[in-house]
Amino acid sequence: MNKPVIGIVGAAGYTAGELTRVLLNHPGVELRYLQSESNRGARVGSVHEDLIHEDLVFSDVDLSDVDVLFLCAGHGHATRFLQEHPLPDRVRVIDLGNDFRLTRDAGPFVYGLPELNREAIRQARRVANPGCFATAIELALLPLAAAGTLSGPLSVFGVTGSTGAGQRPTAETHFSHRVQNLSNYKVFTHQHLAEINETLRHAGCVDGPDIAFVPTRGAHARGILANVVFRSATPLEELLEIYRACYRHHPYTVVSDAPVHLKQVVNTNYCFLHLDKEGDKVLVTSVIDNLLKGASGQAVQNMNLMLGLDETAGLSLKASYF
Amino acid sequence: MNKPVIGIVGAAGYTAGELTRVLLNHPGVELRYLQSESNRGARVGSVHEDLIHEDLVFSDVDLSDVDVLFLCAGHGHATRFLQEHPLPDRVRVIDLGNDFRLTRDAGPFVYGLPELNREAIRQARRVANPGCFATAIELALLPLAAAGTLSGPLSVFGVTGSTGAGQRPTAETHFSHRVQNLSNYKVFTHQHLAEINETLRHAGCVDGPDIAFVPTRGAHARGILANVVFRSATPLEELLEIYRACYRHHPYTVVSDAPVHLKQVVNTNYCFLHLDKEGDKVLVTSVIDNLLKGASGQAVQNMNLMLGLDETAGLSLKASYF
Amino acid sequence: MNKPVIGIVGAAGYTAGELTRVLLNHPGVELRYLQSESNRGARVGSVHEDLIHEDLVFSDVDLSDVDVLFLCAGHGHATRFLQEHPLPDRVRVIDLGNDFRLTRDAGPFVYGLPELNREAIRQARRVANPGCFATAIELALLPLAAAGTLSGPLSVFGVTGSTGAGQRPTAETHFSHRVQNLSNYKVFTHQHLAEINETLRHAGCVDGPDIAFVPTRGAHARGILANVVFRSATPLEELLEIYRACYRHHPYTVVSDAPVHLKQVVNTNYCFLHLDKEGDKVLVTSVIDNLLKGASGQAVQNMNLMLGLDETAGLSLKASYF
Amino acid sequence: MNKPVIGIVGAAGYTAGELTRVLLNHPGVELRYLQSESNRGARVGSVHEDLIHEDLVFSDVDLSDVDVLFLCAGHGHATRFLQEHPLPDRVRVIDLGNDFRLTRDAGPFVYGLPELNREAIRQARRVANPGCFATAIELALLPLAAAGTLSGPLSVFGVTGSTGAGQRPTAETHFSHRVQNLSNYKVFTHQHLAEINETLRHAGCVDGPDIAFVPTRGAHARGILANVVFRSATPLEELLEIYRACYRHHPYTVVSDAPVHLKQVVNTNYCFLHLDKEGDKVLVTSVIDNLLKGASGQAVQNMNLMLGLDETAGLSLKASYF
Repeated sequence: MNKPVIGIVGAAGYTAGELTRVLLNHPGVELRYLQSESNRGARVGSVHEDLIHEDLVFSDVDLSDVDVLFLCAGHGHATRFLQEHPLPDRVRVIDLGNDFRLTRDAGPFVYGLPELNREAIRQARRVANPGCFATAIELALLPLAAAGTLSGPLSVFGVTGSTGAGQRPTAETHFSHRVQNLSNYKVFTHQHLAEINETLRHAGCVDGPDIAFVPTRGAHARGILANVVFRSATPLEELLEIYRACYRHHPYTVVSDAPVHLKQVVNTNYCFLHLDKEGDKVLVTSVIDNLLKGASGQAVQNMNLMLGLDETAGLSLKASYF
Repeated sequence: MNKPVIGIVGAAGYTAGELTRVLLNHPGVELRYLQSESNRGARVGSVHEDLIHEDLVFSDVDLSDVDVLFLCAGHGHATRFLQEHPLPDRVRVIDLGNDFRLTRDAGPFVYGLPELNREAIRQARRVANPGCFATAIELALLPLAAAGTLSGPLSVFGVTGSTGAGQRPTAETHFSHRVQNLSNYKVFTHQHLAEINETLRHAGCVDGPDIAFVPTRGAHARGILANVVFRSATPLEELLEIYRACYRHHPYTVVSDAPVHLKQVVNTNYCFLHLDKEGDKVLVTSVIDNLLKGASGQAVQNMNLMLGLDETAGLSLKASYF
Repeated sequence: MNKPVIGIVGAAGYTAGELTRVLLNHPGVELRYLQSESNRGARVGSVHEDLIHEDLVFSDVDLSDVDVLFLCAGHGHATRFLQEHPLPDRVRVIDLGNDFRLTRDAGPFVYGLPELNREAIRQARRVANPGCFATAIELALLPLAAAGTLSGPLSVFGVTGSTGAGQRPTAETHFSHRVQNLSNYKVFTHQHLAEINETLRHAGCVDGPDIAFVPTRGAHARGILANVVFRSATPLEELLEIYRACYRHHPYTVVSDAPVHLKQVVNTNYCFLHLDKEGDKVLVTSVIDNLLKGASGQAVQNMNLMLGLDETAGLSLKASYF
Repeated sequence: MNKPVIGIVGAAGYTAGELTRVLLNHPGVELRYLQSESNRGARVGSVHEDLIHEDLVFSDVDLSDVDVLFLCAGHGHATRFLQEHPLPDRVRVIDLGNDFRLTRDAGPFVYGLPELNREAIRQARRVANPGCFATAIELALLPLAAAGTLSGPLSVFGVTGSTGAGQRPTAETHFSHRVQNLSNYKVFTHQHLAEINETLRHAGCVDGPDIAFVPTRGAHARGILANVVFRSATPLEELLEIYRACYRHHPYTVVSDAPVHLKQVVNTNYCFLHLDKEGDKVLVTSVIDNLLKGASGQAVQNMNLMLGLDETAGLSLKASYF
């Protein structure tokens, strides 16, 4: 039987690079098209330099031939691409940007967080892949929201790596500036807040949530650590039971008894969670790889669900470029 | 006129190394004694390897000869040292450990935060130098405490460098583990909390403060970034005025209009503060060098005050921006 | 059909951790035994913390049950282990230490560099896996040695990551010391020199080689970059032809037209080579991942050959912990 | 008495930033003019962000008022600046670019390596400050050249930090690419080779030298480590005596008995050297801070000599060991 044929639009960026590395070794699909306007005709290894030995060339996507299309064109470009390229009905689309994540923009797109929407994703032809910070923070709070016990003010401190800022060299990603440094940005106003709020309300949070979110640029290339602090009278053991029950049947979200750190999940599709409690103070720590569970890995997880494959196919392992 | 003679007890550790570097270039004092039991007789450059060209040898301290004694012997050792070595009355002592920071332990020791206790430090013969996280967080909240407007729950996220964990190699400071990693420790229970709470009450905080403090190990060697979040109805401009007024006459604590980052203060004695506000959410960001303003630099600032020297003598350190 | 059963002796170290990550996802074998004296009975995730979700426990190896045994017990321990544990004839052994690499020590062990000894490895019951620096440097010079044109003095500068120094925390692997630092060690006397000299002579180097090797500790965790400099009258194109011909049928050693860097190969089993020439000066640059092509990846490559599996089985991708 | 007045042309770059930090704390001069075309009128702290508390504004240089002018305008710009701005005879000029380093370009400019030309620098009105790699490599070989014993082929491996590549963000200085990476550039063709060759011939090297120089980009921001390898029959002790005698009266070049590393000299004006010998193989390791001894620190050292100040004035920078 022929394997489903895959195309990537905007294949020269960081998330597309990661997607390429994962899909090249995916046993159940065939990566055939890597579209990049500015690199058309060039070997893929000239951009993703760890892949010089692969026989791949940037080209256009033959839309009559693909079964799944990943859109990595960057925020705002997906809408235009879909307007300019009417797709045959059978083509599945996964957008890695933020064009279709909010209900008001979504149209036929399902929000692609498997821990919340697995069944809907299985039926979907269009999936909006969540943002990286959104994934880490939503997974930290989903069980509480679903249990109806998420209320009151929350403080969230999230530290992200330089790959979260994309491929374009800037003053903030200059090595001389970034190495051994820390700085905040978009304090209380990060664009993922709307997505997080909506997702937690869909999950069952009745009012709010009321999140003070401080994003920080870290001295690392890959990975997000999100520290979520709130107050609660519920005993730790009860909270843990809620979390474990919520994720029992989700392969990539793990509640850890021991404290967690970035290196446990970097280069994997996992989210590791850990809870601390002292008096009424609660900390939920959530760690993910921003390029995998926070982008390309979760996109492949969604693809697997949409195609009826094993949810974990092709996601056991991968190359790490950064 | 003879310069005051300085001795360091426990001179082989990180903070003692920094103290040595600062005092060697201090125009108003003479560093004469570097005591280290395990290194007695060895050249100082054999431990602090950047100082191989300095003609210094680890030796005992001649207590009849010193004017100022810095205790870097580690937490708990200062008490014993002072019991075993009765000091002539004229010798000034600055302890860089935590033996005398809390009122219940302090005896004659004054808490050495110049922004709070400058006049008392000028009169003191004994000074307890603040902890590194304590310094960063207290300076972030002192103006509010003094203005009597500090109340309600606070969340504090502080990220520190590997030098904060001392010189002994451990699993947590192993390069392979630490590089590009982040992990929390002592969640809600860090030993500086008592010191912070007491200092803020002394400054004017009537009840509380109620701080949820999450300390994090960062992927860097030097520097602390503390993010302090709380809710307040006071407009940002009013808050800024309170902060600026509080620190107007303090040379090393600067309220910055622009966002701040670690590299601005690493290798200096400065604390830079920045405020953000959105709705009722307030963020105060505080950055310091944990080995300087958080330890040895502040100790020299205290020494300057005790000796009647210019508060900034020997502390115009060349910033190392990269 | 039953898959071959695998055991690892000394399973708590860095190279054993990498081996575990690779073998867990290998389609053709079953990893059944992870032996670690000091961790017997503990969950594997308590040591290799990215594997907390795996249902694995450290145990003894049932030698009557294993088909392939990897020895990761550290240099010198393999000899003793084999003396104390007589193995059934059918058990294949791959030693990752240096006990059997030199002819004088080898006995039945074949030197496990597939680019030199592929056929012998296929027939072998015992394989001595090459050292990490040895692999990088030998692959940089093998084509010249085989062509009989390797002569005259060579200078080799090799920079390695902190994982090369193992798991035990030391002054040299302390993050505060290692970050942004560089230092040489074992100048001209590195223990891999004997192995390199012997291998190049076996490959065809008649006299010599005469290598001045300077190993350097780099500010990174994984990866070796070896710069090999010599003088030669042979034109660059001719040299390139010799290299390409030599590695044409070897899947993991790639001659790159463009300059190479560490990130292209870290977390893979590849060795990338690049040649520069200016006048009579030649530079061969060789980059590998010291834990994979320099240790556990090459060990699995050898296992595949010994078992008659595809040489690349299980090596397409892997988890990155460091 | 009035202090000499200093101006910096091109004051917004990395080396100018370092120069500013050093001169602000120099006891013997007054830094009055910081010229930057693109930043005229802006506060210096808006560019060099650690200096936000300094009351300095970018402005034009009043050439009738300055005593010493530092040219940091970038390679090629100094010539044009001097043509367009005729300078009063009494103004001393130090160029940090490469316009006047070679004899064929020098005109009245003296090559500003104090270890070679101290007396000539004292008399000079124009000084060409050496390149960073040139400084590290020349200091590693100067004693041999002066002793007339430098001959035969040499291999030099030099690793530099990202600050060596300047302030402009590029693909090579992107944090995601640079962190934990190593790559060569300008192999055998680095522009400092001409300067190095000429300097060593001036010092006494009769023919040659014949240097194969491989520059490497390191995973750090500051510092150069140069490994110089050659063959020699001279015993190590004799070599050491030659080196020690050569640098005995030079305050910033130190021959170390113990192996050296970057952190010993970063943030200082020192060059540390160490020699290894095994058979006929010799390694000279040279470490400097590329922004200080390799640029701005050496420029101030030259200024001190030109003004008749103590050679070390303003350069007793606190070492930053971590």
